[in-house]
Amino acid sequence: MATKKAKIAEKKLEVISRLKQFGTQIYDQLDEGAFPSITMPSRSTENITYDPTLRQYILGENRVGRSARNIRHIRPFTQLAWVAFFSNELTSQRKTSTLRDVYYSAQAYEMTFNDQQESNNIITDLETLTGYAREEFSIFPEERSAIFGDLDIGYTVPGYEGKSVNLTSHPDGVLIGPAVTSSEFIKTTADKVIAIEKGALFTRFIEESVHSKHKSLLISCGGQAPRQTRSFIRRLHDELGLPVYILTDGDPWGMHIAQVIISGSANAAHLRDLNTPDAVWSGVWASDIIDYKLPTDPLDEVDIKRLYELQKDPRYQSDPIWQREIKLFLKIKRKTELEAFSRYGLTYIVDEYLPAKLDQKPQENNRKKK
Amino acid sequence: MATKKAKIAEKKLEVISRLKQFGTQIYDQLDEGAFPSITMPSRSTENITYDPTLRQYILGENRVGRSARNIRHIRPFTQLAWVAFFSNELTSQRKTSTLRDVYYSAQAYEMTFNDQQESNNIITDLETLTGYAREEFSIFPEERSAIFGDLDIGYTVPGYEGKSVNLTSHPDGVLIGPAVTSSEFIKTTADKVIAIEKGALFTRFIEESVHSKHKSLLISCGGQAPRQTRSFIRRLHDELGLPVYILTDGDPWGMHIAQVIISGSANAAHLRDLNTPDAVWSGVWASDIIDYKLPTDPLDEVDIKRLYELQKDPRYQSDPIWQREIKLFLKIKRKTELEAFSRYGLTYIVDEYLPAKLDQKPQENNRKKK
Repeated sequence: MATKKAKIAEKKLEVISRLKQFGTQIYDQLDEGAFPSITMPSRSTENITYDPTLRQYILGENRVGRSARNIRHIRPFTQLAWVAFFSNELTSQRKTSTLRDVYYSAQAYEMTFNDQQESNNIITDLETLTGYAREEFSIFPEERSAIFGDLDIGYTVPGYEGKSVNLTSHPDGVLIGPAVTSSEFIKTTADKVIAIEKGALFTRFIEESVHSKHKSLLISCGGQAPRQTRSFIRRLHDELGLPVYILTDGDPWGMHIAQVIISGSANAAHLRDLNTPDAVWSGVWASDIIDYKLPTDPLDEVDIKRLYELQKDPRYQSDPIWQREIKLFLKIKRKTELEAFSRYGLTYIVDEYLPAKLDQKPQENNRKKK
Repeated sequence: MATKKAKIAEKKLEVISRLKQFGTQIYDQLDEGAFPSITMPSRSTENITYDPTLRQYILGENRVGRSARNIRHIRPFTQLAWVAFFSNELTSQRKTSTLRDVYYSAQAYEMTFNDQQESNNIITDLETLTGYAREEFSIFPEERSAIFGDLDIGYTVPGYEGKSVNLTSHPDGVLIGPAVTSSEFIKTTADKVIAIEKGALFTRFIEESVHSKHKSLLISCGGQAPRQTRSFIRRLHDELGLPVYILTDGDPWGMHIAQVIISGSANAAHLRDLNTPDAVWSGVWASDIIDYKLPTDPLDEVDIKRLYELQKDPRYQSDPIWQREIKLFLKIKRKTELEAFSRYGLTYIVDEYLPAKLDQKPQENNRKKK
């Protein structure tokens, strides 16, 4: 246990040390009488490619430079140095913040951003430069997901050091915020993770004791899972060795919620470990609509347009299941929702559908083809 | 304590007994050879009025009837009887459900609804007929808010009877779901409730120990607070005698989030105890924008249209502060957000703004004028 806690503390020191390194580099360049400058990988579209081995988007070899010698670079370079300084303050003082906060905080330092888009972009620059996600610098998103299940976590946040909690202690579930994502995993009886698109089904699963019947940690994504939740799912997979199953609505949007957990997004091509390539999209599939005779709604134009986009997306080439289900959605022109199983009674999804889906081996679904 | 727990169990029995009474009435009418029928208050717009004494919207004297004798009534009457039956199943078996689930569940009973709007409407009929909110019938919304603070609650949900938890046990906060809303309050050191529009500021407040520095229970509304959260805030106010302060963004939408917690919505005119008339909108006011020289954005057309609508809304006549602030928003044509205080440093909102706002007596702001 001490090792895990040490590892979390070590990561924090690494992040701070990387920020310090950036600062030192600027000072050194100044001492040598040189204009401070940096280079980092380019995030332009032509430099983003899907890597079938890593099973996520990555940045290519192109790099961009920022130099104080260039008049057009001075502004973004100064902003980047300030964001690094501010992130260092946050992380050292163990305070959390949001993208929005950073934008407004800049004004306290007379650092100007035209709008939040500009400050968000500079924060992404800092991620690209250092290779750490902004959550490591204590900059969190607004959205929150939730977790429930038999996992003891040990807190590392101020005021809670040395305290631990079992994640079944509150039957509505606890929020996945800075305290959960920075916790160490102590022990669990769970042998899998089930990530669920919707809060209501998450509550149903708790009521029906899916966590104990199917020895699982339940995660409510709250729609598209925030990045910190995706990286937390990856930790559960890697550190506890748990397979991950994802349940979404049966439509292109639900499919893509699963895909982003599995393969990440192009926006995060400059980062690693936010996705879980071995996670499995368990449903609701288009073929489930047929097999389970589910109630449906017609696909509308936007759904159909989206399906054609996904069909061409490199992430949807990773496993034949994606293409098969996209084709079937386009053929039957219907979509459905997780709640649709209620037509067979409220517990049908737990008693019948879920066990059938868990029986599918992760390898059958999402394995990288050699 | 036993009394409180008994009270919660008693409420549950009352709800079930009210449903049984509806069923018995139908059987009795049939036994007497009469067509089953009921009457209930009309929810048409002309029957909704704002009651300045109750400080919420209420239904007037107009009633509508549903009779099995009338061919046009048979469908909604049957649907109503089915929803009552299904609610009785849920409540007796202590299962929770959602509006969406009810719509799909109907198909398991070959009960037809054209769409979810139709089933939602019948559920509202059942609320109107019985006077109980659908949450009492175990039909919950999808959205979830969260709570954090020194309050011991005792669970009444299956599997957790006899267990209690302190709501500071998890530093990211716990979800407000069926387990929290059905819990009994055991003890608290808090002397106020602070409801916050946004999750990010809720996290900031926890980090800055607002719960202990200002002896408060913190609630993250997650935007417009779901009905169960509004009714939970009312319970905290009534059962624990705690004043309630609300912090929102400084724009018409934030203002209305506060107003709905205080005065409820026209949609819930057939129900009581979902609103907290004594709760206080603490800010961000238009006058705070000026007093604190906050960074702002211009009001757009939709904001301005909304302000004119609110100006005429009867709920905004209850206290001069509303009209004063609406006028000021329209004059300065600017809006702001809670995060804007970060321009004075991340802790300014906690160190300076919040104490100033808590010093305002609830009575100064939102008192009913005699």
